Amino acid sequence: MRYLFLMPKSFGSHCPVAKTLDIVGERWTLLIVRDLFFYGPRRFKDFEESLAGIAPNTLSARIKGLEEKDVIAKRLYTDHPPRAEYYLTDKGRALEPVLKTLLEWGKRYGG
Amino acid sequence: MRYLFLMPKSFGSHCPVAKTLDIVGERWTLLIVRDLFFYGPRRFKDFEESLAGIAPNTLSARIKGLEEKDVIAKRLYTDHPPRAEYYLTDKGRALEPVLKTLLEWGKRYGG
Repeated sequence: MRYLFLMPKSFGSHCPVAKTLDIVGERWTLLIVRDLFFYGPRRFKDFEESLAGIAPNTLSARIKGLEEKDVIAKRLYTDHPPRAEYYLTDKGRALEPVLKTLLEWGKRYGG
Repeated sequence: MRYLFLMPKSFGSHCPVAKTLDIVGERWTLLIVRDLFFYGPRRFKDFEESLAGIAPNTLSARIKGLEEKDVIAKRLYTDHPPRAEYYLTDKGRALEPVLKTLLEWGKRYGG
């Protein structure tokens, strides 16, 4: 059995699947992206509530990583006091097909 | 901005995306699945070669987890000496759309 879609012969750092996973290949990372698809813009404490069990420093590191990779961005939504929220960039919104296929598989096989 | 596909309102353990990520939401796990799509059945040492940088005990744990979740299975391909190889089950092959969307995103945004 061989897979049916095109993939470069050279794996490692050149494989687009590995490149994607370098950016979002971690459970919490994809759940942060999921929340932003589902709820729209979110504050740090919103993530803390929906991602039950995540340590604040882990959440902070995952958010920072996604910002650095331009998957999400931050903006102030009030000045007094200053409060920030996170939202998906175009690059982040382009992950919708990934979320969709994860959802479909989970509905069928997630038990 | 709201995402366009259906997802249950109740997140946490009921969310199909989270359920999928419980099973394959780890970088190495999806790269093991990728290798099996690309190459077909693989031996332990084949994974060690293609997944450069993975520690043998990590690889062993990931393989065991995927076997327990029925995503991959093991069979003997010679008796003398006994040698085993891993292959994708139906449940594992059903991950093809996930791999495809990861590939597409990586080609466009993986840099």
